[in-house]
Amino acid sequence: MPSSELPTTGADLGLLSPVRAGSAAEAATGDAAYLRAMLDAEVALVRAQAALGLAPRSAAEAVATAAARQETFDARALALAAPAGGNPVIPLVGALRRAVGEVDGDENAAWYVHRGATSQDILDTAAMLVASRTLGPALEDLASAAAHLAALAREHRGTPLPARTLSQQAVPTTFGLKATGWHSLLLDAHARLSAVRDGLPAQLGGAAGTLAAFHTAAERAGVPTGDLAPRLLSAYAEETGLAEPLLPWHTLRTPVADLAGALAFAAGALGKAAQDVLVLSRTEIGEVAEEAGGGSSAMPHKANPVQAALVASCTRHVPNLAAVLYGSLAAEDERPPGAWHAEWQPLREALRLVGGAARATVGLVQGLRVRPERMAENLARTGGLVVSERLTAELAAVLAAPDAGEVLDRAVARASQEGSPLADVLAEEPRVAAVLPVERLRELLDPAGYLGAAPALVDRGLARRSPAPPTHP
Amino acid sequence: MPSSELPTTGADLGLLSPVRAGSAAEAATGDAAYLRAMLDAEVALVRAQAALGLAPRSAAEAVATAAARQETFDARALALAAPAGGNPVIPLVGALRRAVGEVDGDENAAWYVHRGATSQDILDTAAMLVASRTLGPALEDLASAAAHLAALAREHRGTPLPARTLSQQAVPTTFGLKATGWHSLLLDAHARLSAVRDGLPAQLGGAAGTLAAFHTAAERAGVPTGDLAPRLLSAYAEETGLAEPLLPWHTLRTPVADLAGALAFAAGALGKAAQDVLVLSRTEIGEVAEEAGGGSSAMPHKANPVQAALVASCTRHVPNLAAVLYGSLAAEDERPPGAWHAEWQPLREALRLVGGAARATVGLVQGLRVRPERMAENLARTGGLVVSERLTAELAAVLAAPDAGEVLDRAVARASQEGSPLADVLAEEPRVAAVLPVERLRELLDPAGYLGAAPALVDRGLARRSPAPPTHP
Amino acid sequence: MPSSELPTTGADLGLLSPVRAGSAAEAATGDAAYLRAMLDAEVALVRAQAALGLAPRSAAEAVATAAARQETFDARALALAAPAGGNPVIPLVGALRRAVGEVDGDENAAWYVHRGATSQDILDTAAMLVASRTLGPALEDLASAAAHLAALAREHRGTPLPARTLSQQAVPTTFGLKATGWHSLLLDAHARLSAVRDGLPAQLGGAAGTLAAFHTAAERAGVPTGDLAPRLLSAYAEETGLAEPLLPWHTLRTPVADLAGALAFAAGALGKAAQDVLVLSRTEIGEVAEEAGGGSSAMPHKANPVQAALVASCTRHVPNLAAVLYGSLAAEDERPPGAWHAEWQPLREALRLVGGAARATVGLVQGLRVRPERMAENLARTGGLVVSERLTAELAAVLAAPDAGEVLDRAVARASQEGSPLADVLAEEPRVAAVLPVERLRELLDPAGYLGAAPALVDRGLARRSPAPPTHP
Amino acid sequence: MPSSELPTTGADLGLLSPVRAGSAAEAATGDAAYLRAMLDAEVALVRAQAALGLAPRSAAEAVATAAARQETFDARALALAAPAGGNPVIPLVGALRRAVGEVDGDENAAWYVHRGATSQDILDTAAMLVASRTLGPALEDLASAAAHLAALAREHRGTPLPARTLSQQAVPTTFGLKATGWHSLLLDAHARLSAVRDGLPAQLGGAAGTLAAFHTAAERAGVPTGDLAPRLLSAYAEETGLAEPLLPWHTLRTPVADLAGALAFAAGALGKAAQDVLVLSRTEIGEVAEEAGGGSSAMPHKANPVQAALVASCTRHVPNLAAVLYGSLAAEDERPPGAWHAEWQPLREALRLVGGAARATVGLVQGLRVRPERMAENLARTGGLVVSERLTAELAAVLAAPDAGEVLDRAVARASQEGSPLADVLAEEPRVAAVLPVERLRELLDPAGYLGAAPALVDRGLARRSPAPPTHP
Repeated sequence: MPSSELPTTGADLGLLSPVRAGSAAEAATGDAAYLRAMLDAEVALVRAQAALGLAPRSAAEAVATAAARQETFDARALALAAPAGGNPVIPLVGALRRAVGEVDGDENAAWYVHRGATSQDILDTAAMLVASRTLGPALEDLASAAAHLAALAREHRGTPLPARTLSQQAVPTTFGLKATGWHSLLLDAHARLSAVRDGLPAQLGGAAGTLAAFHTAAERAGVPTGDLAPRLLSAYAEETGLAEPLLPWHTLRTPVADLAGALAFAAGALGKAAQDVLVLSRTEIGEVAEEAGGGSSAMPHKANPVQAALVASCTRHVPNLAAVLYGSLAAEDERPPGAWHAEWQPLREALRLVGGAARATVGLVQGLRVRPERMAENLARTGGLVVSERLTAELAAVLAAPDAGEVLDRAVARASQEGSPLADVLAEEPRVAAVLPVERLRELLDPAGYLGAAPALVDRGLARRSPAPPTHP
Repeated sequence: MPSSELPTTGADLGLLSPVRAGSAAEAATGDAAYLRAMLDAEVALVRAQAALGLAPRSAAEAVATAAARQETFDARALALAAPAGGNPVIPLVGALRRAVGEVDGDENAAWYVHRGATSQDILDTAAMLVASRTLGPALEDLASAAAHLAALAREHRGTPLPARTLSQQAVPTTFGLKATGWHSLLLDAHARLSAVRDGLPAQLGGAAGTLAAFHTAAERAGVPTGDLAPRLLSAYAEETGLAEPLLPWHTLRTPVADLAGALAFAAGALGKAAQDVLVLSRTEIGEVAEEAGGGSSAMPHKANPVQAALVASCTRHVPNLAAVLYGSLAAEDERPPGAWHAEWQPLREALRLVGGAARATVGLVQGLRVRPERMAENLARTGGLVVSERLTAELAAVLAAPDAGEVLDRAVARASQEGSPLADVLAEEPRVAAVLPVERLRELLDPAGYLGAAPALVDRGLARRSPAPPTHP
Repeated sequence: MPSSELPTTGADLGLLSPVRAGSAAEAATGDAAYLRAMLDAEVALVRAQAALGLAPRSAAEAVATAAARQETFDARALALAAPAGGNPVIPLVGALRRAVGEVDGDENAAWYVHRGATSQDILDTAAMLVASRTLGPALEDLASAAAHLAALAREHRGTPLPARTLSQQAVPTTFGLKATGWHSLLLDAHARLSAVRDGLPAQLGGAAGTLAAFHTAAERAGVPTGDLAPRLLSAYAEETGLAEPLLPWHTLRTPVADLAGALAFAAGALGKAAQDVLVLSRTEIGEVAEEAGGGSSAMPHKANPVQAALVASCTRHVPNLAAVLYGSLAAEDERPPGAWHAEWQPLREALRLVGGAARATVGLVQGLRVRPERMAENLARTGGLVVSERLTAELAAVLAAPDAGEVLDRAVARASQEGSPLADVLAEEPRVAAVLPVERLRELLDPAGYLGAAPALVDRGLARRSPAPPTHP
Repeated sequence: MPSSELPTTGADLGLLSPVRAGSAAEAATGDAAYLRAMLDAEVALVRAQAALGLAPRSAAEAVATAAARQETFDARALALAAPAGGNPVIPLVGALRRAVGEVDGDENAAWYVHRGATSQDILDTAAMLVASRTLGPALEDLASAAAHLAALAREHRGTPLPARTLSQQAVPTTFGLKATGWHSLLLDAHARLSAVRDGLPAQLGGAAGTLAAFHTAAERAGVPTGDLAPRLLSAYAEETGLAEPLLPWHTLRTPVADLAGALAFAAGALGKAAQDVLVLSRTEIGEVAEEAGGGSSAMPHKANPVQAALVASCTRHVPNLAAVLYGSLAAEDERPPGAWHAEWQPLREALRLVGGAARATVGLVQGLRVRPERMAENLARTGGLVVSERLTAELAAVLAAPDAGEVLDRAVARASQEGSPLADVLAEEPRVAAVLPVERLRELLDPAGYLGAAPALVDRGLARRSPAPPTHP
């Protein structure tokens, strides 16, 4: 097919990323959202300077007015202009200066646009604004999913189902304990993401982190420079709504790395629940089902665990995006050629994937159908083998220890071969029958009687409150 | 800022990815390109069935006509409909059926749309079409960059500059040999990408890889089913222009993994040249410069190696996308819930990053300014230390071996401390002066006289022809 | 616990890596194997020089004799000495020189040890030797596992079981086709690994890739230097048994990157079979079992799919090791400080994990118990839903198309709710009964009658010969 | 070379990992250390049961005595026995039971070994013990390196050098500010690692997380079971010295994921300083040097920044190990076949690489030679361009704004072409000369006069105390 016939726009509208298509996270991380955040950063910059007397208030307001006319700024045109200088801020500054000129009679206002800053100040601040705005709804979704899970866990505190280890039925547990585990991971993810979100700092350093151009401006404006840095960082942070940075962090990428870790954590935490749902909703297991299971283009009967699959896809992707971001910590000089640029798209992608997966998880847990009857059927399948651990202990206590193992091994083998209930097979062993009547054997073999601390652990797990977020220094 | 004010579209228009903004690779991998490729796959499917007598030719043409009306299909609407079923093909099939109904009086034609196939057949085939179309211009760019590098290498076959190891000047080499190395890696990348591109297969298996629904169709149409599979796979591959698969590969992800490896390779190969340019264009080294160095938003004098920085950012990202794709080889069952979905976005991203980096490399090497005078200056900086290896060998041959080392170590230390030329310091050593006159010492210390096989290796490297692509079975 | 009580050796003896503990791959990649390979490289270096007249034959033999006394060289002592210079070759050269001195009356022989080379020549050559030696048994294991799978596939060419997509039963397939898929991936892995292995090159470039020191030596020895590079590269490659490199590849890391890709591919290919076995051997599915299932420390009845779990663990690890290796392609200068060093451990680890996983897969497939009766049971579980695709097509052909969908949807829903066989429910629909008698409905609903091309695809897949390895240029 | 001649041990003794060879981290993470930690966990298990009345105190002491005889346990033999069951605990339990039998007359003591636990309880607890023991010295090294950096930063608070962005000199900064940035990252790493270390929990859940076997034991021992879980978790945690877990975390892998994030962070943080040292110690820049620079096997004059190179290699590796660990959060069921196993080696490797890199960084910063004279030389190289930002602002203030840019651009271009000082070129511009005398121009062009807030930011950065560790919930 001749390439001349191919589409000329390369826009990504979500077609290949159903986990986030249409989500709040997608909207909050689109190019339009970044553009808006960059304009917000430029406005905050002039306002902060005005607050310190380094720029006229009228200039700040002219810039704010121009920046508010979002339709003036064309994300695609800026994208096409970005490769020349390597980032989109350079053309944006030009566009904003022109817009200010059009807005305002004061022909000098445009001169204050971006004055003293470097592209990275704007793009980093914008990234933090975008992260903060994306994490808002994502945290709400995590909290909402956790609340649903707490309710599920309470409801099924004692509902027995087979615990499975290395793919095999192991011993009984309760669905409530399983849901408590998912709940616990979601709270962990919430705690990590909120802690990071609360500390997201504004970025301001000027050309290379010394704020030198602001000193020049202050000298000319007669503003004392002794404590200019703290006052400027504080005013700028205040205008952006972000935290005040200790130092310009052009190459001290703690905020990005902390986001990387918290997002990879959240992707994995959401993935645990999804992975379990994928197992439990297998046709042959059938212990849970997604209410709104997705259809198939070929098979009308199928009700696929679609939400879980989409979350699982996110879990596979985000840790490697985080690896790129962690790698960028080793940012040489005062602005690295490559490591910084390599952060932009992976950070955006990780934010929107996690936000989308949080949304999908709300849908997943809200609509989860739990089927205690299938759980009971599955527990019954092994004819008692699922509580062989208990038998071993009981037999060992009443028989000589080494013998106990042998007796049980033999009975397990026979029960397995013959498909007979283990209680009956054991009851035929004279030495067992001598000490444990068949009724007691049946009792010992009842999965619902061997739940250990599962219900108590549900209570313990749910007693944990959504904690006050930890704070990194 | 209230989220209600935030933009509601999440489109990625390239704002955060200057390495590919505006490139052929970006256009070839956008949602519009995927949509077109999915429609191409649906058309090929009906045509292949028509060719085998499983569908009327008129139906195939009605589908083709409907699919050609690309404005009928709204990528964003399909994206928003995709989460329900987990992939965009399900809503696309609906839209295509409706479009066929509108196109054609033959109300039955719509019935043949997607008949016998599963969503994955369409999406996988589309991904291969997109990969093939993206790699076309990328391979051209690689070849073009390699040709420029060959010319550079020939021109600078004997231009001396310091080889650097572990960040320190080591011994002299030539710029031609450096360019030959870059050339060699670009040919390696070209070979790997072409080999993979030549084998990209169409995907067809039906619901779960058995082509069963086509058998039903054949039985009803009175078409023999004995060799239906090979005939169908062949006809479908022919219609798509892709290679014929040996087996349906829904969960045999060799084509995707091979793309992953070749793309990660290409990203790294391009990154080597970029990384070298970043070093050599450092202000203090200055041996090369990008002709169209990017400006700075803060510092008017700067001419940044922007193309190299953008390529370097791609190199940091793609290997981790490849890791996700390799991980998806372990695709359980006949369609995995998660591993398959996790491929879509990383594959697209890797394709467009590598395509963009290839384009940027063409710009980089075409406009590369080489500065032999700076190379000479840098070689002279160590006062002869850069050929100390040679001296060691010569002195060892004329003095007793252990002594030679000591004598040179002492002279090197003195030359370094005093900032004196090493030849002069050595000439003051009586035992050296006895065997090597100062003229010979100066000759031995001339970097241009110690190039070893560098020029010969340039010839050897360039003699390699762009090889016929290897073929994987 | 006071750290003074802690062990002082940090040896990794395989305790945390059961997938490779005791395997040929582990032995072939241990420090002893690397030490041996480094000594082999040093011997080859002197022999190659002797062959070209650059060194006396007696010196070469003295070095060979000294190097053969492997007990002389203490890997741990060398490891402890390595950090000072950053690599283990520097202390090894010292030790080898001392050993040559002890071996030989010829006090000059030691002088030829490592002469002209750089540490990287030795370590890279050693890595290629280790890779080659490790891949030998790994390829044999892959071939052996593939042969077993081919036999399994033939045996179960027509054995029906449920194909599963997105965790749900989809339509029937055959176990033979599943095994054919595994076989196909193993052949793909074999082809990629053999191709790479056949091209593994020796490394020789001297201090910085110009072979300059060898030119000095040649000049002193009166050996013509015009074609020294090709003759030396050829002689050295011959002595090592590796391929002759086109260029010194100190920073042209194609061989390492190609290994990365082929190893990540193999890890994923092996992981597909393992992942399927993990699903199919679930207690509730039980269609296959590992013969020598692993025991549990707590539950006597368990027979865990241990081999599959170990292979799966390898699959999760290797793609990320490959990402590190691909990242190292961007190796600046003539020897990068970091990128090169970062290759050593990941390459070794990837080699031994893949080698171990190949071994485990042989055990897995040799001992795999296949249970057609459980497959049949599982197919029967959905009461016919597993062939609903077929029904849809048949009903659509006999009823008006839109109606067919409705009728089936209704029947499927009823069958599902009531747990009745779909044939019976459908037979109660008057319009269906009018055209399809219940016997025909039962026939249509027989899973074994809806295998499509599965058996034919087994034949097609197995007809593929283990292909001649492709060759990269 | 025939494989029969190859070494049969595959031990990793550190030969390929100089960054950690001989370090405390290596010793603390070796197989011997894991073996010891597993034995510690087994002892803690019996002691905790004895504390609750579930086992005789004499049994606990017999187990402790047997476990203390570390020479009894052969890590290699256990490694070789591990593949059968998939983990090393199964054979270890056997060996420990035998050892208890030999130690003690009380033949029943062996029966209490591992009673109630599962392999994962022991291996996870051991991993946490190993992590805790490894992080101890690593944290000390981080603190020590940070202290050295604080001293360096104070000393060079005002020492000017060129800030570099995108590889080009940008504006002046101070070496003190650079060191303050490194210091800041090291404190960030310290904070994250200590926070994680303080919360590392013991693991106890029994076969599948319900502690059921302990309930059986309690019932037989007449111990009340109402609050058995909290009492047992508390007693076990106390005996291990680790934190008490909220829930058994067999598949709630928060502790491992948190380690992953903190270790990837630390690797990156250490990498930033290393990367900067690699740049600054380039021959052509020479602003810093490693005191004990590593030698070369080929070039006697070289003093390579070896410590920095080794740290940089660690930085390239750890983020991808972290990606594997984050991926394992999605651990299905109550013990996943693969995801759990895939954690062991990457966690160990990440711990020892970071511990080794922290050690190397201490050496690096302790011995760092700082060369203010080279910094001054480098600042002078651009003839004033390094402060062009300042000039732009000053000229814009005294000339009409648009003109200022033109005038400076022209002067910069001329200065660059002619190699003349920018002050002189500007002084020849009549309009400039009219307002700025050449003395003022020279003052404006003095790099040391354009440091902005750099010294103040040093004070601000160092005022930060090593913070109290944040606590995750």
